[in-house]
Amino acid sequence: MPLIVQKFGGTSMGSVERIQNVAQRVAKWHAAGYQVIVVPSAMSGETNRLLELAHEISPTPSDREQDMLAATGEQASSALLAMAIMAQDVPARSFTGWQVPVRTNNAYTKARITHIETERIRAELDQGKVVVITGFQGVDEEGHLTTLGRGGSDTSAVAIAAAMEAEECMIFSDVDGVYTTDPRVVPEARRMRVISFEEMLELASLGTKILQIRAVEFAGKYRVPLRVLSSLTDPQIPVEEERKSGTLITFEDDQNMESAVVSGIAFSRDETKFSLLGVPDTPGVAYAILGPVAAANIDVDMILQNQSVQGTTDFSFTVQHTDFERTKEILENEVAEAVGASEVIADSKVCKVSIVGIGMRNHVGIASLMFRTLAEENINIQMISTSEIKTSVIIEDKYMELAVRALHKAFELDQDHYAPLDE
Amino acid sequence: MPLIVQKFGGTSMGSVERIQNVAQRVAKWHAAGYQVIVVPSAMSGETNRLLELAHEISPTPSDREQDMLAATGEQASSALLAMAIMAQDVPARSFTGWQVPVRTNNAYTKARITHIETERIRAELDQGKVVVITGFQGVDEEGHLTTLGRGGSDTSAVAIAAAMEAEECMIFSDVDGVYTTDPRVVPEARRMRVISFEEMLELASLGTKILQIRAVEFAGKYRVPLRVLSSLTDPQIPVEEERKSGTLITFEDDQNMESAVVSGIAFSRDETKFSLLGVPDTPGVAYAILGPVAAANIDVDMILQNQSVQGTTDFSFTVQHTDFERTKEILENEVAEAVGASEVIADSKVCKVSIVGIGMRNHVGIASLMFRTLAEENINIQMISTSEIKTSVIIEDKYMELAVRALHKAFELDQDHYAPLDE
Repeated sequence: MPLIVQKFGGTSMGSVERIQNVAQRVAKWHAAGYQVIVVPSAMSGETNRLLELAHEISPTPSDREQDMLAATGEQASSALLAMAIMAQDVPARSFTGWQVPVRTNNAYTKARITHIETERIRAELDQGKVVVITGFQGVDEEGHLTTLGRGGSDTSAVAIAAAMEAEECMIFSDVDGVYTTDPRVVPEARRMRVISFEEMLELASLGTKILQIRAVEFAGKYRVPLRVLSSLTDPQIPVEEERKSGTLITFEDDQNMESAVVSGIAFSRDETKFSLLGVPDTPGVAYAILGPVAAANIDVDMILQNQSVQGTTDFSFTVQHTDFERTKEILENEVAEAVGASEVIADSKVCKVSIVGIGMRNHVGIASLMFRTLAEENINIQMISTSEIKTSVIIEDKYMELAVRALHKAFELDQDHYAPLDE
Repeated sequence: MPLIVQKFGGTSMGSVERIQNVAQRVAKWHAAGYQVIVVPSAMSGETNRLLELAHEISPTPSDREQDMLAATGEQASSALLAMAIMAQDVPARSFTGWQVPVRTNNAYTKARITHIETERIRAELDQGKVVVITGFQGVDEEGHLTTLGRGGSDTSAVAIAAAMEAEECMIFSDVDGVYTTDPRVVPEARRMRVISFEEMLELASLGTKILQIRAVEFAGKYRVPLRVLSSLTDPQIPVEEERKSGTLITFEDDQNMESAVVSGIAFSRDETKFSLLGVPDTPGVAYAILGPVAAANIDVDMILQNQSVQGTTDFSFTVQHTDFERTKEILENEVAEAVGASEVIADSKVCKVSIVGIGMRNHVGIASLMFRTLAEENINIQMISTSEIKTSVIIEDKYMELAVRALHKAFELDQDHYAPLDE
C-alpha cells in the first residue's frame, strides 16, 4: 500500500469545522487505499497564546520550560484530529513526538531531529489505522521535551516522510502552491506546478514564507517528494486530482519540468544596510568589521567592499531589522575606531529583490537582463549578490513593487512555460 | 532536609498573578530549608474547555484521545509554574507524568496509579531544585497517556508524597480547611484543626467536595499526613504559621484530637429515591431488583426493605440524579414485571443528611439524638443508614438546610471542642 504523509498548518486546524474538514480529507485518502500519517500544527493562535503567557510569567522564561509549554499545542490538536478522523469511521490514533519517538538533540526551542523510530508507527499503519503525529516536537536523549522552532511542523512532516520512505509528503496550508512571485504584488503571478529543490531552497531562504527552509533542506537530503497544496479546497475532490494540485518540489532533472530560465521572484523588506566610510584598504579589514558582528550571533546577508580610492574604501553589509540596534552599537562602539572608519551610516529604507531559476546555470545574460530592466525603470542598484541559481539586488525600498512587477514581465513569468504534464 | 508535597488546585492556578502567587509561596518554603515537590492542576476552566472541544468534534470521543487531549492542561500549567518559580530565583524543573514516570493501568479517563519511580525526582531535589510534576496523569505500560479522572491531581499529589515518603502533603485550594458543615448553610460552622482519616473518608464519600475520595483512600493506605489549606492567604505568611493552618487529616489516635462525638455534618441533594411497591417477600427479591441495576454500572447508595405485610413488602433505594433515567427504564422494563411489583415510584425531591464522628464508636445514643432533633423540627425520616462512624438519613429536600442547622446546634458543633494543640 502506498504511504503518504500529510501536514496541516495552524490555519487548517483553526476551528472545530476546519479540523472536521481535515478529517474528511484524510478519510478520503484512507478510503482510496493509502496508508496515511497526518502531522498537524497547533490550532492557529495557540502557540502564540502560550508563549505570551510565558512572557507574562517571566521576562526570560527558561527554554526547556517554553518547550514543555509550547508542545501542548500540537498534542491537543493531534488528539482532536484523531477524534475527528474516528468520527469519520476511520480508525486513528495520535502520538506525541516522545511516543514515536522523534529523537532530537537538546537545543531547546530550536532542536534538530537526529532519528525517528518507525516500528510503532508501522505497526499501527499495518493495522489499518491513520496515525496522527504531533508536529514541531521531539524528545532528547534524557527524555526532556524539545521543540523545533517556528514552522517546525513542516520539518517534522518531511523527517517522518523520509524515515517512513513515504511516497510523498503533502504540505497543506492556506496557500495553494508556490507562485512565480507574490500575487498580492503582481496579479499576473502564476502558480508553478513543479519547482526544483534548489530553487525552492533559494526561495525559502529569500523570505518566501511558504515552507520552512529546514524542511526543504531535509527534503533535499533524503530526496522526499514534497507537495505544497491548499487545504481550502473541497475535501471531497478526487484523490487523483488532489495528487496533481499545488506545487511539487522535485529532485528530478526532468526536461519537462520547465523551460523558463527564471522561475520565481522573491523579495524582502527585512533588510538594513550599514556602511562604513573611509576605511583603510588593508588586509584583514573585512574580518575586523564583521568578526565582532558574527561574534554577537548577528546574521550578515549581503556584503560589498567598494574599489579602493587613494588607499581607503567604503564597506557595506546588510542585516535583518531585528538586529539593527545591536549592529549599530557594535559598529559605533567597537569597530569604527578600531578600523579607522570616518563615518558609520545605517539605512533601513532598502529592500532585497531576487530572481531565482535553475535555468540560470546554463544561460548567460540573465543577470544583465535584470540590471537592464531595473535601469529602464530608473531604479538604482546599491548592492548585488549572486549564486549559481539566483541574483539578488539591494534597492531603495519604495521601488520594491515596481521592480518586482517589471522583472516578472521581463522574464515572461506571466506566461505559461510548462510543458503539458498530464493533459 | 524535610520534604513536602504541595498541590495547587485550578483556581489557585487560574491566572498569571495567581501562578506568581503560588511561586512566591513555594519559594518561601524552599528558602525555609524544605525540599518541595509541587503538583498543579490545569488552569481553571482549561480541562472543561478541552473536553468541550472534544465533544464538538465527536459525540463519542475515544477515551484514549480524551486523555491525550486533557493531559495538556496540566503540562502547560506545570511549565508556567516552573517558569514562575525560576523568576523567584529558585531553580525549578517541570516533569509530566510520563517523564517521572507515574505508572498507571490503562483505564483511560479513570486510570489508577500502580507505581511511581522516584529516582529522577530525587536527583533533581538533591540538586536543590523545586520539582513541579503534572497532576491528574500518568503513563500505562505501553507508553500511552492516561488520566486519573476528575480531581485526580489530589490523588497524584498524595501518591507522590507516599512514594517519596514526604513529611506532609499540603492540598492548597480556595477553601481554608474542613468545616463542621458547609458555612454557606450554617454560618456558625467551624473549621476543624484536625480530623481523623476515617471521618475524612466518610465526609468525602458523602459529597463534601474538598478532597477526592481516592486521594483520601491513598493517604490512608500509605499513612500520608494530609493538610487541606487555603491558597488565598498572603503567600509570605511564615512557614511555621502556614504549617499549622487549615485542617490536618491524621492517622494518630490522639486523645488531644477532639472531644466531640460528632465532628461534622454532610449533606447532598444528589439523591433520587426509587420505590417498588407490593413486592412479594421471597428470598432473592433484593438481588432480582438490584442485580440488573448493578449490571448497568449504576451506583446504589441507600437501600431499605420494609417489613413484610401479608407476604408483600415495599423495596426502596437511592441513586444519583445522573442515573435517574437509566434506573427508571431498567425498573419499569426489566424488573417490575419480573418481581411482580404493583408500582414503581421515583422521587427526586429527597436529600441525604449525615452526621460523622469517630467518637460515635464509643458513645451510645448519638443516632437517637439525631432522630429526636429531626422529630422536634417535624422532619419525617424516609430511610436510615448507619456505619461505625456515621448515620445518614433521607428526608424531603426542602427540609435540608433546617435539618443541617438543627443538627449542628444539637451536637454543639458551633462550640470549640478541641483541646489546645499548640497554645
